[in-house]
Amino acid sequence: MTKSAPTAAVLLIGDELLSGRTRDINLQQIASYLAPLGIPVRETRIVPDVEDEIVDAVNALRAKYTYVFTTGGIGPTHDDITADAIAKAFGVGISEHPEVTAMLAERYREMGTEYTPARRRMARVPHGASIVENPVSGAPGFQTGNVFTLAGVPSVARAMLEDIGPRLETGAVVHKVTIRGRGLREGDIAEPLGALAKDMPEVSLGSYPWFVSMTDSGVHLVARATDEAQLKVAADKLEEIVKACGVQAERLEEAG
Amino acid sequence: MTKSAPTAAVLLIGDELLSGRTRDINLQQIASYLAPLGIPVRETRIVPDVEDEIVDAVNALRAKYTYVFTTGGIGPTHDDITADAIAKAFGVGISEHPEVTAMLAERYREMGTEYTPARRRMARVPHGASIVENPVSGAPGFQTGNVFTLAGVPSVARAMLEDIGPRLETGAVVHKVTIRGRGLREGDIAEPLGALAKDMPEVSLGSYPWFVSMTDSGVHLVARATDEAQLKVAADKLEEIVKACGVQAERLEEAG
Repeated sequence: MTKSAPTAAVLLIGDELLSGRTRDINLQQIASYLAPLGIPVRETRIVPDVEDEIVDAVNALRAKYTYVFTTGGIGPTHDDITADAIAKAFGVGISEHPEVTAMLAERYREMGTEYTPARRRMARVPHGASIVENPVSGAPGFQTGNVFTLAGVPSVARAMLEDIGPRLETGAVVHKVTIRGRGLREGDIAEPLGALAKDMPEVSLGSYPWFVSMTDSGVHLVARATDEAQLKVAADKLEEIVKACGVQAERLEEAG
Repeated sequence: MTKSAPTAAVLLIGDELLSGRTRDINLQQIASYLAPLGIPVRETRIVPDVEDEIVDAVNALRAKYTYVFTTGGIGPTHDDITADAIAKAFGVGISEHPEVTAMLAERYREMGTEYTPARRRMARVPHGASIVENPVSGAPGFQTGNVFTLAGVPSVARAMLEDIGPRLETGAVVHKVTIRGRGLREGDIAEPLGALAKDMPEVSLGSYPWFVSMTDSGVHLVARATDEAQLKVAADKLEEIVKACGVQAERLEEAG
């Protein structure tokens, strides 16, 4: 019960996320990976490929949360400026990492591909950073203090998390129960739900309506707690609240 | 050519987005709606259902961008605290809006549904705010200064944008061309791409790799500019760069 409470923030970097061209999936991947480790994501920011914006966001987030995860901007092209921005945020230099550049040189030699100056850029890491392995496509991520810099390509970002997991201080795992009430309306349950939230402050209660049409709508009620016994009590009460409205309650139990 | 350059930020509010339970779609909807109006989204933040976090984010963003769009947290339940947070951010009071509460009372009367205290909460708007119509489910959003507060349910948020559009100062529309190169590798085009980016500073060039597997990977090259003639020159050069790698270039032209 004296376990520490680590927290995380996610910083998604890239014009394509802000323009709507790309719908991000990395936040979900990172949050889902961290949840069973007891590390909740508390804030996310999306910034463009602009150095000062990246620097300001990194510095704001690393001061406030235990860990920061960035995605995007570590490839070989001119718009890949994340490594430089991280170095600037930490006030350190940046240069080719000898082991990384040797590894990339060997990898490209095996592929029969020229190891060009552009590809060498992917070996540049901030001074003092440690490497995060990329088993998918070679070019690594890196860890600078409490900031982990991952690729933007989802399959690569996901693989990098495996190398990061063992480095993280874990917290108390939050368990979750979802009660799905098709046809339920939030206004019908708001009062008893609010009362339950007040009665059980150690359980976090969320109400998430969906509305596709007048005939396809409803509410998901989500209870979260580290204490499983308390969670069960809350979930039973949520079911009662839903059933009192004459609506069937569908129950889903999940970790994280 | 002397057109102003309005900018936007999006603030997504809700624990469910940070936990990974819900994958946001509102950023894409808002960015896609604003693009043809010449209003680019420059930053996005996702914060939990915590009043101080919402207040801080609203105040940081409204000072920096022409417009701020928030989504989520305006329903009838205890975790819907956005309206109060907006009022606090602007330092104004909040109470039931007479016209909104009359409209909701009438709507629920027609539906044969009790207009409960919880439902009355949805009529509360910050003092001085104007109403944003919700033709889907009734309970409105609102505009406070340069901040627009929308529902989190995507169909409702999308409908609310229609009432907001005419209020916005528009900018120069950015046009976009995408060149899709299946099998292309960023390292092969990084040098000529970087040189083109330097030669044509008025065109924004982005390189977005995808990587599903060694046989299903490639790069999307995206050029954006307000000047369509310049954009065409850049797109032709991008095609040449891709073709020089022995890869077929597939061209997509889009607005926004």
